[in-house]
Amino acid sequence: MPDIAGLPLEQISASVARAILEEGVAALQYGDTTGRLKTKQVICGLVADFDIQIVPEDLIITTGAQQALELIGKTFIDRGDVVITEGPSYLGALQAFSAYEPDVHTIPSDENGMDTDLLAEELARLGPRGAKFIYTIPNFNNPSGVTMSLERRMHLLDLARKYDILVIEDDAYGRLRFEEETIPPMRSIDPNILYLGTVSKIFAPGLRTGWIIGPRPILEKIKLVKQGDDLCGSTLNQVIVERYFTEIDWRSTLDATIGRYHERRDALLSALEEYFPAEATWTRPQGGLFVWINLPEHIKTKQLLPFALEKGVTFVPGDGCYPAGTGLGLSSMRVCFSFEEPGKLREAIRRLAAAIDEYLEASKA
Amino acid sequence: MPDIAGLPLEQISASVARAILEEGVAALQYGDTTGRLKTKQVICGLVADFDIQIVPEDLIITTGAQQALELIGKTFIDRGDVVITEGPSYLGALQAFSAYEPDVHTIPSDENGMDTDLLAEELARLGPRGAKFIYTIPNFNNPSGVTMSLERRMHLLDLARKYDILVIEDDAYGRLRFEEETIPPMRSIDPNILYLGTVSKIFAPGLRTGWIIGPRPILEKIKLVKQGDDLCGSTLNQVIVERYFTEIDWRSTLDATIGRYHERRDALLSALEEYFPAEATWTRPQGGLFVWINLPEHIKTKQLLPFALEKGVTFVPGDGCYPAGTGLGLSSMRVCFSFEEPGKLREAIRRLAAAIDEYLEASKA
Repeated sequence: MPDIAGLPLEQISASVARAILEEGVAALQYGDTTGRLKTKQVICGLVADFDIQIVPEDLIITTGAQQALELIGKTFIDRGDVVITEGPSYLGALQAFSAYEPDVHTIPSDENGMDTDLLAEELARLGPRGAKFIYTIPNFNNPSGVTMSLERRMHLLDLARKYDILVIEDDAYGRLRFEEETIPPMRSIDPNILYLGTVSKIFAPGLRTGWIIGPRPILEKIKLVKQGDDLCGSTLNQVIVERYFTEIDWRSTLDATIGRYHERRDALLSALEEYFPAEATWTRPQGGLFVWINLPEHIKTKQLLPFALEKGVTFVPGDGCYPAGTGLGLSSMRVCFSFEEPGKLREAIRRLAAAIDEYLEASKA
Repeated sequence: MPDIAGLPLEQISASVARAILEEGVAALQYGDTTGRLKTKQVICGLVADFDIQIVPEDLIITTGAQQALELIGKTFIDRGDVVITEGPSYLGALQAFSAYEPDVHTIPSDENGMDTDLLAEELARLGPRGAKFIYTIPNFNNPSGVTMSLERRMHLLDLARKYDILVIEDDAYGRLRFEEETIPPMRSIDPNILYLGTVSKIFAPGLRTGWIIGPRPILEKIKLVKQGDDLCGSTLNQVIVERYFTEIDWRSTLDATIGRYHERRDALLSALEEYFPAEATWTRPQGGLFVWINLPEHIKTKQLLPFALEKGVTFVPGDGCYPAGTGLGLSSMRVCFSFEEPGKLREAIRRLAAAIDEYLEASKA
C-alpha cells in the first residue's frame, strides 16, 4: 500500500463537503461512461508535466488502473492470442489478462528494464502483428522496481512500429522518483500507444480513479466494453479528484511522501546488505515502492512464506509475477518499502533473514 | 436516471466531511476486495426488511450492480453456455454477459413476469444443468416494468431445484413500490440463489455501490474474479453509504421519491391513453421507473427513434432488450417516467405520438 498518512485530511474533508454543495445532486448521479469532462481536463494537466500533450477526448477515466487492465484484456484478447510482458510483471495485470486466456510470452528484464534485444528476437519469430500487445511498466516496475532506459524505450517503440504491435505503457508509479532524472514516458514520443495512469499512488487509492490515454478509435471500443463493465465510474470520486488537484497543494504533500519513500528504500537496502545471505541479489530502485530479491535457486520463496508469516513478515513470492506454469521466479520475492518506517523495515528484513535460516534448516531435516 | 433531487445535500455534505475526519486516511486507502465489514453490516440491515436474514460473510460489495453482472458473466459463462433470461430483459445485463459469448435463451414474460410454464418446457428440453443460470428481474422489471407473481416465483424456484440450475435475482428496483403489496424476494425463500442489489435507486447512483448475496463457495470464486477486475471498490463511497443509511432519515427521503414516481407513472399512463394509437398496448407497473410499450408490427421503433429525437424525446428501442439477432422487440420501446415532472411527461408522450404519425407518413411515401 502507498503511504497516504501525509494527506491533508482537514483540507480534503472541507473540499469534499463544499464540492457536494456546489455540484449539487450531479455529484451523486450517473455520469458519462468515459468520465467527467472536468476531471479529464485535470488529468490532461497532470500528464502535461511529462510532456504528454492531450485534450479530454484522448482519455477515458477508469475505476482505478486495475479496471484499465481488465478493459484492455476484454477489448483485445481472444483465447490463445499472444501477449508480451516483461518478466517479472505486475501480478494484477497477469490476473486481469488471464481471464481472456492469452498465451503470455515473457521477455526477461535487467537493471535497464525489458531486454529489447530479446524482444526483437521474439518479434522476429512471431512476425508482423504476431502479438496483440506489449505490456510494460517502464518506471519503477511492479514488482522489480527497475526503470527502463531511454535507449530501450526508443528501441521498443521502433520494434512495435516495425511489427505493427500495440504498446501498453503502465505508468502507475512514474511520479514517485527520488533519485536521478525523469526519463520521458513513451507516450510523449509516440501517440499511438496506450498509456495508463492512476491517482492511487499520488493521492488516494480508495477513490479508484485511473485513466487510459490512447488513440480515439481504440478508446471508442474500450468505451463500449466499459459500459458493460460498470456503466460509469463514481461521479463523486471524480469530483473529489478534480478538487484535490486544483484546490490543494498536492505537490508538496507528494514531495514529502517521496522523501519518506527514499529514506525507506535506503533503510531496506542497507538492511539487506547487513542481514541477507551473500548469494542473494536485489534491485536498487530509483523510485516507486518495490525491491525485487533473487535468492539462491534452492530456496523456494513460496515455501519460505509460512516461515516469514510466523515471524510477522510478508512478501509476494516471485512466481506469481510470471504466467502460471512457467516455473519462473520460484526463488524470487517482491518486498515493499513504502508503508513502514525505516526501523520497522530494518527489523522486517532481519526477521526475513532469520526465516530463511529456519527454512534452510527445515529443508535439511 | 432515478430522480435524486430530493436528497438532503446539506446533511450528506456534513456527514461525508465528518466521516473523512473520523475514519482518517483509512477512508482513502485500498480496502478489502469484497468490501468493508461495516458497509456489509449496513446492507445486511437493509435486506432484512425483505426477510433476507444474512451475515456479512454472505455478501460481496460491487462497483454498482452492473459490476455484479460483469462478475457473474466472467465467473460462470464459457463460450456457448446456455443462459436463460426473461424477454425483454435488462440491456446492461445482456451486454455484460455477451462479452463471454453465451447462448441466451429468452422466456417470454407477461403481466405476471417470466412465463414459468414456458420455462418448464425449455428446461425439459435442455435437461438437468442444461443452462448455467436463469437471470431475472422480478420486481418492476427493466425494461418491462412488470412484477413476477409469488406463484411464478415459487414455480421458478421449484424448476431451478429440479434441474439444478442457479438463479440470479436482480432486485435493483424492489424498494420502489407505490402500489399493492410487496412480494417476497426469492432469496428470502431459497438461500441457494444469487441476489443482486444496489444503492443506485434508493440513494445515489454516482457512488457505484451494489452487492451480490449468495452461497459462500460461489462468493469465493467471484471474489477472485473481482480482484482482477478492480482490486477493490471505492472505500470512501462505502463509508458514505454506511453513514447515509445510519445517520440520515433515508426512509422519508425515499418515500417522497416513490410518491413522485407514482404521480409520474399516472401522468404517463393517462397521456398514453389520450395520445397513443388504439392498437398500442403497454404495461402498468406497480413501481420502478419504466413502462414497456408494444406498437403495431409495422412500426419499427429503431426507425422511429430519429423522428422522436427530432422532437426532443427519446426512448430505448425494444430490440436492444433481447439478444442480438433474434428479431424480437422490433416494435416495442421502453419509456422512463422517473426523471421528469408530470407535465413534461405528458408533453413527451404527445410529441412521441406525433413522431409516430410522421414516421408512418414517411413510411408511406
